[in-house]
Amino acid sequence: EEIPLLETVGRILAEDIVADVDLPDFPRAIVDGYALQGASTFGASEGNPAYLTVTGSVAMGESPEVTIGPGEAVRIATGGMLPQGANSVVMVEHTEAIDEATIEVYRSIAPGQNMIAIGEDIKKKSRVLKQGHPIRPQDAGLLAAFGKQKVAVFRRPVIGIISTGDEIIPINETPNLGQIRDINTYTLMGLIHEAGAQAVSFGIVSDDFEILFEKCKLALDQCDMILISGGSSVGARDFTVDVLSALPDSKILVHGISISPGKPTILAKIQNKVFWGMPGHVVSSMIVFSRVVKPFVKHFSGQAGMQEKEHRLNARL
Amino acid sequence: EEIPLLETVGRILAEDIVADVDLPDFPRAIVDGYALQGASTFGASEGNPAYLTVTGSVAMGESPEVTIGPGEAVRIATGGMLPQGANSVVMVEHTEAIDEATIEVYRSIAPGQNMIAIGEDIKKKSRVLKQGHPIRPQDAGLLAAFGKQKVAVFRRPVIGIISTGDEIIPINETPNLGQIRDINTYTLMGLIHEAGAQAVSFGIVSDDFEILFEKCKLALDQCDMILISGGSSVGARDFTVDVLSALPDSKILVHGISISPGKPTILAKIQNKVFWGMPGHVVSSMIVFSRVVKPFVKHFSGQAGMQEKEHRLNARL
Repeated sequence: EEIPLLETVGRILAEDIVADVDLPDFPRAIVDGYALQGASTFGASEGNPAYLTVTGSVAMGESPEVTIGPGEAVRIATGGMLPQGANSVVMVEHTEAIDEATIEVYRSIAPGQNMIAIGEDIKKKSRVLKQGHPIRPQDAGLLAAFGKQKVAVFRRPVIGIISTGDEIIPINETPNLGQIRDINTYTLMGLIHEAGAQAVSFGIVSDDFEILFEKCKLALDQCDMILISGGSSVGARDFTVDVLSALPDSKILVHGISISPGKPTILAKIQNKVFWGMPGHVVSSMIVFSRVVKPFVKHFSGQAGMQEKEHRLNARL
Repeated sequence: EEIPLLETVGRILAEDIVADVDLPDFPRAIVDGYALQGASTFGASEGNPAYLTVTGSVAMGESPEVTIGPGEAVRIATGGMLPQGANSVVMVEHTEAIDEATIEVYRSIAPGQNMIAIGEDIKKKSRVLKQGHPIRPQDAGLLAAFGKQKVAVFRRPVIGIISTGDEIIPINETPNLGQIRDINTYTLMGLIHEAGAQAVSFGIVSDDFEILFEKCKLALDQCDMILISGGSSVGARDFTVDVLSALPDSKILVHGISISPGKPTILAKIQNKVFWGMPGHVVSSMIVFSRVVKPFVKHFSGQAGMQEKEHRLNARL
C-alpha cells in the first residue's frame, strides 16, 4: 500500500529507494563565512594574513551570479550555494573586515574545506534505502529530500486473538471464585502492536468444540495469523489440536516446543495461514510471543532477514 | 485524560494503580493433576507409592464444593481452583490411575507445591503501577486483571515545528539550484512521535521578521512546545532570537550550547511555553533533539524522573 510520507515512521518499506538526484545537487557552505579559492589563502596566518576582495554575497536559496577568481571572496551563510570558481569557505571567525570590499583571512584554507560537494551526501542512482527496511525518522527526512510524498510500504499483517477457557471472563465482569479476567488478550494486543502488526480480538470462547471451530473459521477469513490463547492444560491442548485439525486444509506442524516456560505451544498451518496455540499463563505467553511468534510477525510484515539483532558482548567483570 | 485500556500501550500513567483484590483471589493449580494434602504423599516414591481416593474433579471457572481430607485427591486442571482442605497439587505425570476412584502417587509433594496461593502474584492494597509509568503490554494485561476498562493517562504534549530558511522549499516542489527540500520537518515529526508526543507542522517560513513573528504567535496558541528548525547561521540565529525576544512575556534562557554538532541551539521560555531554536543541519538537529529536547518532552509527557536509563557496563575485551 502507498501511504503519505508523514505516516511512514515505523512502517516497512516495500520498494527500493534509488536517488534520482545528487544530494546536495549544488555545492553548499557548511559554515558562515566567505566562499573563495583555497589557493588565495595559502600561507596565510595571524601574523601574515591574506587580503581578499569581497565581490558580493550569496542570497540563500538562489544560484549566485558572481564568479570567484583568485584573490576574490563572496559572503556566504551556512547552506548557501558556492559561486562558480570557489572551491572552499573560510569561517567568518577566521577573517576580519578591513573595509566594505576587503577582508583579512588568518588561515590557510584547503580546497574542499567547510563545504559539501555535489553528491557528497548521496550519489545519484545509488540505492539509499532497501525494500524491507523499517522507516526511522531520519529515513522519512531522506525520503523528503527526494520529494517522496507517498511511499510504498508493506501492509501490516492482521493478527487475530481468540481467548479460550471456561474460567476466563471479560474484564468488565467481576470474577466469581475460580474465575479470572481475560489478561492475555490485552497483553497480546500490546505485543502485536509493538511488533508492527494490527490486532483483532475475537473475544472469549468457552471450551466447546463447535464454538471454537466456528470462531476459528471466522478468524481465518479476517486475519493473516491467529493466536489461540489458553488451552495449555493437557486436556484443553488436545482439544485445541482437535479443533485445528478439523478445519479444512489444516496441518499441525508443531505440538509442544522445547522451551520452558512455553512448552505447550502449538503451530498449525491452515489454508496458508498460521495458527498458534499459545500457553494460557501470561508470562509463558509473552515469552513464546517474543521468542517464537514475533520473528514470524516480522517476516509477515516484509522484514525478511531484518530480524532484531541481539548484541552480544563477551566481557570479564 | 481517560482512554480505553486497549489504547494505553505506550502512554504514560497519570494515576497510581492500587490492587483492589488479591491476585489470584483463589488458590490456583499451575499444573494438570490432583489437588491433595501434601502430608498424604509424604514418603511416597516409585517403589513405594501412596494410594489416594479420588473424590471428584474441579470444573474450570467454578468454586469446587468438595473438601479434601487426608488420603483424598481431586482431579484439577491448570488454572483450576483448589478445593477446601487441599494445600498442593501433584502433576498427572507423577500418578497412575488404578481404578475409577484410586490413584498411585510416586512423589512426595510439599505443601504449596504446584499451586499459587491467594495474593501470591499481587497482594490487595499494594501499589502495582506508579503514576508516570510508561504502559507496556504486560501492564495493560495487569490493568485488565483489575478490570480497568478506562485508564487515566497524561495527555500527549503537542509540539509545533516551524521550518525557517529562504533556501527551504516544500517537498512536493522541485528545487532550483541553491534550494533544498524541507527534510527537517519530516525528521523532527518522526522523532516527536517516537518520543510519545503529537507533532504539528506550521510549514516553511522565509527569513522575514513579521512572518516568523506571526507564525510563532499562532504556534504559541496551539502547542505546548515549539521547535524552530533552521536559522543556525550567525545572522539567522540572531534573527530567530530577535523574533523570540519580541514575543510578549519571553525570556531567552540559552543561546548556544557546548555540544558539537549542535552548538547554535536556542532555548526560550515564552508565556510558560518552551521554544527551541534547532540547528538547520539535519544531523545536528537529530542530536540536539535526542540529547536535549527529548528529556523535556518526556518530562512534559508526565514521565518525571523516568528518563531513559543508559546501561553502562565496564568490560575488559
